[in-house]
Amino acid sequence: MNETIELMLSHRSIRKFTEEPMSEETVRTLVACAQAAATSSNVQAVSIIQVQDPERRQALAGYAGGQPYVASAATFFVFCADLSRPARACESRGGEFTPGMTEHFMIATIDVALAAQNMVLAAESLGLGICYIGGLRNNPREVADLLELPDQVYPVFGLCLGTPAQDPEVKPRLPVDAVLMQERYRSAEQADELVASYDDSLRTYYATRTGGKKNSSWSEEMKALVGKESRPHMREFLGQQGFTLK
Amino acid sequence: MNETIELMLSHRSIRKFTEEPMSEETVRTLVACAQAAATSSNVQAVSIIQVQDPERRQALAGYAGGQPYVASAATFFVFCADLSRPARACESRGGEFTPGMTEHFMIATIDVALAAQNMVLAAESLGLGICYIGGLRNNPREVADLLELPDQVYPVFGLCLGTPAQDPEVKPRLPVDAVLMQERYRSAEQADELVASYDDSLRTYYATRTGGKKNSSWSEEMKALVGKESRPHMREFLGQQGFTLK
Repeated sequence: MNETIELMLSHRSIRKFTEEPMSEETVRTLVACAQAAATSSNVQAVSIIQVQDPERRQALAGYAGGQPYVASAATFFVFCADLSRPARACESRGGEFTPGMTEHFMIATIDVALAAQNMVLAAESLGLGICYIGGLRNNPREVADLLELPDQVYPVFGLCLGTPAQDPEVKPRLPVDAVLMQERYRSAEQADELVASYDDSLRTYYATRTGGKKNSSWSEEMKALVGKESRPHMREFLGQQGFTLK
Repeated sequence: MNETIELMLSHRSIRKFTEEPMSEETVRTLVACAQAAATSSNVQAVSIIQVQDPERRQALAGYAGGQPYVASAATFFVFCADLSRPARACESRGGEFTPGMTEHFMIATIDVALAAQNMVLAAESLGLGICYIGGLRNNPREVADLLELPDQVYPVFGLCLGTPAQDPEVKPRLPVDAVLMQERYRSAEQADELVASYDDSLRTYYATRTGGKKNSSWSEEMKALVGKESRPHMREFLGQQGFTLK
């Protein structure tokens, strides 16, 4: 096992940060690392907005559902899927941008995630901690308005970064054999035992971490997560930004 | 700069591989690294199908639009967004899975991309080369049928891995200042000069690499990419897999 792999396997989200600020040089290195990730047809459909103003950070922390580390992290980035730049380039060469394709939406969203994960590992390799903030999608309209996002741009998630002021345990994952399949999809039924053993290990993890206060398993969490509508405003919001998903 | 960051900044896609096979141990390490990435609400909506059978590889290479390295790479993974596992877990606890949410589709797609990018960096840290195969989305119905993907599962992209048998240059990216913004979105107009300078550097890169045969710029590539419909079958295909995007 090497340094990079050890780094990955020790990943956990950090939600408490010291007050140590981040240098502009580090910010630019992190962005360059994000850009170095693979990108579909070189579209580079990623814009990264750094928000440092305390009032704006407070607003974002609120939009994210009251996550205080959005305000307190040394640095906060909003990762945006951005088809505005390629659309403009297309039109500068006499082309006519074709808006609303589901495939373009996917390309841009995937580009953003690949770039962000590069930034995350680069940050962690520098001793920083991170926390993704999908909660920005609780109030995407407000986030887009605050950041003045134009047509063809939407906020995929935020990212808190800073020097860790906590050292949480690594959260256990599903067994490799539940996720890795050979040649064809293995029916979910065949993974039931693996999921059951994972339910047990996650229950133990929570119990240990909270001194017995939290008693939950993965299956119970999934009931809460996919057993109801989730951010039902999302489709309409995406449409407002020009991602009509046709 | 450290090892991890150097690795990222030297990334390029590899499309020619030696015949050196990959050990099962390496495959399992790579999958564990993929799983270690952040995941939205711990949903872990990722299934990874390793395809090694030569006939099935040939079929996938064809579906991807005739990309021979899909057949010749030491290992080929299909990364699937998988809500079937959490849906089943939800129902095992008496919940009722709510299908078709755009937000769930996004969560699963982003989960897949974060996991894949971890695997990519882990592979590169072991001296392997990779190439993402978005081309699987050229014929997603055929790919899903070949892999026997059930409802609530779709193939996001493929990944070729193996020992590199070529050493291409790193492709230049947009300037950091075109991508990094402060406090709010900076209008595309303000980035026009940066894009123009990138157009020049990309044209030089292509000319050098092809002995003058390829004469193109980023803006011209974008005209070809977003100036027309892209995979217009995608929306219908996703609907067939239960991702109705409501």
